[in-house]
Amino acid sequence: MDLAPSPAAASAADAAEDPRLDRLAELAVKVGLGLVPGQELVMTAPVEALPLARRITEQAYKAGATLVTTIFSDERSTLLRYQHARDESFDASTPWLFEGMAAAFRGGAARLAIVGADPSLLSGQDPSKVARANRAQSIAYRPALDLIVDSHINWTLVPFAHPAWARAVFPDASPADAVQQLWDAIYATTRVDAPDPIAAWAVHNAKLKARQDRLNEQRFHALHFRGPGTDLIVGLAEGHAWMGGASRAKNGVYGNPNIPTEEVFTTPHRSMTQGTVSATKPLSHQGTLIEGIQVRFEAGTIVEAKATRGQAVLEQMISTDAGARMLGEVALVPSSNPISRSGILFLNTLFDENAASHIALGQAYSKCFVDTFTEEELVRRGANRSLIHVDWMIGSPEVEVDGLDAAGNRTPVMRGGEWVD
Amino acid sequence: MDLAPSPAAASAADAAEDPRLDRLAELAVKVGLGLVPGQELVMTAPVEALPLARRITEQAYKAGATLVTTIFSDERSTLLRYQHARDESFDASTPWLFEGMAAAFRGGAARLAIVGADPSLLSGQDPSKVARANRAQSIAYRPALDLIVDSHINWTLVPFAHPAWARAVFPDASPADAVQQLWDAIYATTRVDAPDPIAAWAVHNAKLKARQDRLNEQRFHALHFRGPGTDLIVGLAEGHAWMGGASRAKNGVYGNPNIPTEEVFTTPHRSMTQGTVSATKPLSHQGTLIEGIQVRFEAGTIVEAKATRGQAVLEQMISTDAGARMLGEVALVPSSNPISRSGILFLNTLFDENAASHIALGQAYSKCFVDTFTEEELVRRGANRSLIHVDWMIGSPEVEVDGLDAAGNRTPVMRGGEWVD
Repeated sequence: MDLAPSPAAASAADAAEDPRLDRLAELAVKVGLGLVPGQELVMTAPVEALPLARRITEQAYKAGATLVTTIFSDERSTLLRYQHARDESFDASTPWLFEGMAAAFRGGAARLAIVGADPSLLSGQDPSKVARANRAQSIAYRPALDLIVDSHINWTLVPFAHPAWARAVFPDASPADAVQQLWDAIYATTRVDAPDPIAAWAVHNAKLKARQDRLNEQRFHALHFRGPGTDLIVGLAEGHAWMGGASRAKNGVYGNPNIPTEEVFTTPHRSMTQGTVSATKPLSHQGTLIEGIQVRFEAGTIVEAKATRGQAVLEQMISTDAGARMLGEVALVPSSNPISRSGILFLNTLFDENAASHIALGQAYSKCFVDTFTEEELVRRGANRSLIHVDWMIGSPEVEVDGLDAAGNRTPVMRGGEWVD
Repeated sequence: MDLAPSPAAASAADAAEDPRLDRLAELAVKVGLGLVPGQELVMTAPVEALPLARRITEQAYKAGATLVTTIFSDERSTLLRYQHARDESFDASTPWLFEGMAAAFRGGAARLAIVGADPSLLSGQDPSKVARANRAQSIAYRPALDLIVDSHINWTLVPFAHPAWARAVFPDASPADAVQQLWDAIYATTRVDAPDPIAAWAVHNAKLKARQDRLNEQRFHALHFRGPGTDLIVGLAEGHAWMGGASRAKNGVYGNPNIPTEEVFTTPHRSMTQGTVSATKPLSHQGTLIEGIQVRFEAGTIVEAKATRGQAVLEQMISTDAGARMLGEVALVPSSNPISRSGILFLNTLFDENAASHIALGQAYSKCFVDTFTEEELVRRGANRSLIHVDWMIGSPEVEVDGLDAAGNRTPVMRGGEWVD
């Protein structure tokens, strides 16, 4: 599952006129957030997403929001920092803003993030400055992130077709065509194109729930991924639970934290991953594209990490803290879903993680357990702790997945990219 | 002096290419804020002001800012609230955001607000909802406002030519021409058109300083305004000091809190205003234009208030709290300045208050005293306290201003709109 991005940083006029934009906004509020009348909403959005932010604002007020506040970010202002700021800037962040957001969440506000960015924004910048800025922001954002990760509140991520993102995904199209093609792909994969999107999500959530229940019955001890460049055992946390689709936050509200979503996922044991794994898709991380990732784990920790492109950023990322070298999530995704079938490399986690099975380095979700445990208990059961949570794709039709029980007995789980049963 | 607006809530492409936009941004950072290397900057801006916000961000980083954060507001989202939100929304605000901003200020951040709005945005909305929303916001904003009003930090307001504002000021011009004419007026009145704007502001600040010194030597007990519909005695606070132009904040930084500024101002005694006064220009207040204001004071408090247009909003405004019916500022402005000479009714306090002498209802500036006093001492000396601070114009070439000493002896201060000496 993709985590709410920390707020760091205006779509085409035609796109703003598309009636599907309103349907996406309604889906975000009703299915994504499940917004409750009387609830406040805190939204983050790139300035380019202003038309979608306004539609969501309207839908949220119609659904009974008391107040909708959007914190906009601006990528060009972010770049100006890299171009002109003094060195000490890159260890600075805005704890006052993130603590403010955390206070809103503690006060009952829901959280919506509009997702869409230039995937190469920072690719020309000094990787150590990028890493320092990300680290400073991760630390400052922590109070807000904890409330999101631990599902204290209902939250969701929804996409919009950022022009630079569209150009990266459809480099051969004109800028306007690229944006239109990305919107078309967004509407198809979020089921906004269905005759009744909200009903389509009810069906979809029921299917994910059935798969989650099946895996919870099987109670595997570990998963074994085997394919080209991959031979990886991922031990699962003691008392882990599989989740997928709609879930209930601790404030009692049901929502879909990611739109779209196609995965079922759980918490690995942070010291029980062993072997080598090759990414099956490039990873777009904080403005840099990392390609050809190959990693070796020993007793849960990365001991070797290579990439054919973006290796410096990969190394900076896994050096954030001790937990950045260990797993916080493992997710299974079949190939027969709208995102995977589109064949599009979206260069964006919210989509690409739903095209293939994946793992995430860093922070684990405490909700992926059979019960509510204390922090101490979670750690004892194997939940990883880190400032980061970065998903990357390791599944494909060529990668087989087996479940292993405590004795090592093997049950086929995925073959040819599909569920075995 | 205009107060930093509470953040409530993008200019034409041509305007973004005007090199004067960069000069305005440089002026805002160097003369407005006097930004100190290593200082953080928190900016608020309407989304329409994105091009100016980016220029200011660049100039701030070049001047050594550690981090620049812009909180954008969106008028259309504000309108959506009035159109669709449930009734209880209008008693809600975002204390989490304003307390966050206050924390940034306490941590040393400077504050810049880009000013420019649709002066009639809320004129079609229920005045009682407007008043409730403003009141809720004023209460929530208070922790941040106190730090600004009491000059704990360096802060400034700078204008930009919002399209709806330009249309209201130049209703007979095409929308594009109106924006261009407003920008031209902004560049002329902010002295950005001077060969060296920063040097021009040094000269201007020296002149305001000389006027401030003269008034402080004269130590008047009260001012007497006489003109059409006006016969008003404004008693001054015990130990009041006149201020104007650049000032030193408590963090030691010199800046110009308003760009433009043409006034010298001080703190009246809250219970010593007596008589009637007629506004000489319309007042644009929180999206409503209030025209033809006529008010009668007894022992400092408004006992009668009329307006030929917007009376309901005026009444709501002065009913905010007890201090909203009493004066917190009196300012003297000669007619021979670029704003007054332009003959333009800007429908915006930042400009219009600098075209004419004015008074403000509500909160007083504690800095307008000969010494630093405790809150208790300030109140004893006559400083007013309120959630609001609303400037309105009472001066014109037809309004004479005299200074009165304790014995009632009269010294002419302004005649025909100009200083007597």
